[in-house]
Amino acid sequence: MCKAPGHRYAGAMETFFLDDLTIGQRFVSGTHALDAAEITRFAAEYDPQPFHLDDAAARETLFGGLVASGWHTACTTMRLIVGGGLPIAGGIMGTGGELLWTNPVRPGDTLHVECEVLEITPSRSKPDRGTVVVRCLTKNQRGDTVQSFTPKLVVLRRPR
Amino acid sequence: MCKAPGHRYAGAMETFFLDDLTIGQRFVSGTHALDAAEITRFAAEYDPQPFHLDDAAARETLFGGLVASGWHTACTTMRLIVGGGLPIAGGIMGTGGELLWTNPVRPGDTLHVECEVLEITPSRSKPDRGTVVVRCLTKNQRGDTVQSFTPKLVVLRRPR
Repeated sequence: MCKAPGHRYAGAMETFFLDDLTIGQRFVSGTHALDAAEITRFAAEYDPQPFHLDDAAARETLFGGLVASGWHTACTTMRLIVGGGLPIAGGIMGTGGELLWTNPVRPGDTLHVECEVLEITPSRSKPDRGTVVVRCLTKNQRGDTVQSFTPKLVVLRRPR
Repeated sequence: MCKAPGHRYAGAMETFFLDDLTIGQRFVSGTHALDAAEITRFAAEYDPQPFHLDDAAARETLFGGLVASGWHTACTTMRLIVGGGLPIAGGIMGTGGELLWTNPVRPGDTLHVECEVLEITPSRSKPDRGTVVVRCLTKNQRGDTVQSFTPKLVVLRRPR
């Protein structure tokens, strides 16, 4: 994560208002390791398909073995972002964007998220906020990008 | 869901290969109701922000009250699609697409998904499959669209 020089971490993290962000600014999250038990537990609830539920069954599919649901990757990404990977003041409020799954996530993979600020647009009608486009790449322990998400966020301006 | 005339439902649902799909074909899922307990449980695990966790805290935010995480809407959508809302032979294998959250999801909302086939493209290099673009609109009980997702899917061709 980008830190302001001399910033103190006393249980709280530094957060950024719209006015504090710059194009090209980058943030890096912590990590999360996904094991087979977590992959199948998520799938059972939200994406119960053989290639996400059972390794033997998954070997008979195009994936050739157990893979995490793309939505599991997306939710893990969000958890990493909310946990400090994208320290926006007031929280992460996304209206959506392009979501791409570019490589499979396998049991044992450890994911982290790298976000970069692409666009910053103050609102013309609402002086307390604006929109920010970020590209968040979720990568595994080898540096392969497993997911690219480019959301538009509603971001608050620094109170006067 | 679209049914072939005379199709029997004997515990299994009719599924569609690439060759069976047509542009403009539509499918409608079952429904799922989201209550506050499910909204906050999901958020605690994947999107722990005040507006998804606590109604009183959410009233102090731009949302004005508890709202479901967009990822909860996305996961609920996937569950409805896998549960018969988009009966693709071999399963739903998406490579991603545009994901937009267009209205908040509140406690007590009942969601369903309406999918429409937009594009069908047989693979030139792999004769057993192709890609299909679908637009899946997730709607609440009033018919408001709460999410639009337009994924590209890998779909198997009917075996000869």
